[in-house]
Amino acid sequence: MAQRLESALEAVIARAEAPNAPPLLAAALRHAVFPGGARVRPQLCLAVAQACGDDAPDLADAAACAIELLHCASLVHDDLPCFDDAATRRGRPSVHALFGAPLAVLAGDALIVMAFDALARAGAGAPARLPALLTTLTRGVGMPGGIVAGQAWESEPSISVEAYHRAKTGALFVAATMSGALSAGADPHPWRALGDALGAAYQVADDLADAVLTEADLGKPTGRDAALHRPSLVAELGLMGAYGRLKDLVAEAVDSIPPCDGADDLRALVRLQATRLAPKSLARSAA
Amino acid sequence: MAQRLESALEAVIARAEAPNAPPLLAAALRHAVFPGGARVRPQLCLAVAQACGDDAPDLADAAACAIELLHCASLVHDDLPCFDDAATRRGRPSVHALFGAPLAVLAGDALIVMAFDALARAGAGAPARLPALLTTLTRGVGMPGGIVAGQAWESEPSISVEAYHRAKTGALFVAATMSGALSAGADPHPWRALGDALGAAYQVADDLADAVLTEADLGKPTGRDAALHRPSLVAELGLMGAYGRLKDLVAEAVDSIPPCDGADDLRALVRLQATRLAPKSLARSAA
Repeated sequence: MAQRLESALEAVIARAEAPNAPPLLAAALRHAVFPGGARVRPQLCLAVAQACGDDAPDLADAAACAIELLHCASLVHDDLPCFDDAATRRGRPSVHALFGAPLAVLAGDALIVMAFDALARAGAGAPARLPALLTTLTRGVGMPGGIVAGQAWESEPSISVEAYHRAKTGALFVAATMSGALSAGADPHPWRALGDALGAAYQVADDLADAVLTEADLGKPTGRDAALHRPSLVAELGLMGAYGRLKDLVAEAVDSIPPCDGADDLRALVRLQATRLAPKSLARSAA
Repeated sequence: MAQRLESALEAVIARAEAPNAPPLLAAALRHAVFPGGARVRPQLCLAVAQACGDDAPDLADAAACAIELLHCASLVHDDLPCFDDAATRRGRPSVHALFGAPLAVLAGDALIVMAFDALARAGAGAPARLPALLTTLTRGVGMPGGIVAGQAWESEPSISVEAYHRAKTGALFVAATMSGALSAGADPHPWRALGDALGAAYQVADDLADAVLTEADLGKPTGRDAALHRPSLVAELGLMGAYGRLKDLVAEAVDSIPPCDGADDLRALVRLQATRLAPKSLARSAA
């Protein structure tokens, strides 16, 4: 599954490296996407597609690619000087640190466009599935409740923590599970709960990592939530309270998986990924 | 036609103003889209759709909306401090001047997503037309040869003037004519030449305006090409040389219109819009 995803992403990035393309932007796009992080969202998309029969694998690959490209776009823009001003990402220089803010803005824009392009190309083989797939993605990233809305809550004078977390993290996990189902021709609605629970779990894990890990552990600056006065579940529930909430959310995710041929495999995958979520020091303290 | 477009854009912006949306980003989106400029590109898209029979008007409206939203997104990002740092646009404060750079970045991102969302929603009624419509738009705005590529050429140490102009301006005009045809179920290829010629004409007109008009005339800063050492046809051909090139391109555009029921109306529209292109002082000097 991992190899399938990397090949699909490679094909997308290679298309942007055409001879007539501006070379620095092409290089910035490759830097933004390779080598990847855990690729959690697109793997989840593919895992749901497989659980639903995966009868149109090119479309599932494209949906997974689109999810990852949109995630990478949000990271590139979040790292900009006007937001987090993060010099590192995944243990390497961030896109703006290496290529400058102008190319980082454009790289994010290009990645968003490439996400829809990947889906449109694969959708030519199954156009009837395309409208719902597209709107599932636009809901996950756009206004009023997707990633950009989540990021925009940080610019509001008063902030709804639940709307903030749901939009900034949860919405793309929901898009991942639902688009996985849609790419395989299945009803997406029973898959919303899995995306919701995993998105919430990742948000808690992210807050925990930001609070207890160092920049060397994580490959990006930490302690940012406190420094930027961003709402955090650690601030609200304390470290062990937040850790308990993470475990509950993973259990909720596993229980939410609807009956389907691949349900057992998917439950095993979710449990496996969950073990990687919590900072090791906390897992030891809680054991 | 103008009313039809404004209503479609209004519906898109209203969807982003949902009760759960971050209010400042919603306001920034409205500011970026209303009141509009000349809406040249989406009008061109609708005019071609009408010339081709306009048998799916909702899809044509969505294509025109998408073209305008992508254009607005590029303006919002071009005005950012890290690019042109323009405080005014259409005679009013630019989005970043009024809402700050973070919300301007996010507004551009959201507008890109909204463009594809509008197309996906309307495409549910004619999904077979959707893949080509989408890829026509992604080619116009994405890598390797769309708007973002055009903007990225400004960050390259050496620049191909032709690739720069074709990508920064021409590509979206080509997307406008071809998507107009596609939305009406027509072959898009005979419409490429019209988009190419008009895109080139607008780039010349833009260079002329930047060279001879004042900020008060134009509602945005002028003299930027020279100040930023950007390639300009005025620098290359002189004022009257560039004006002559503009007239040639308009004639080329009119001649390129393929045989179709609405060809006469479309030729009249192109000639009418062309009279608005050149700064009046130049038209007088050349008369």
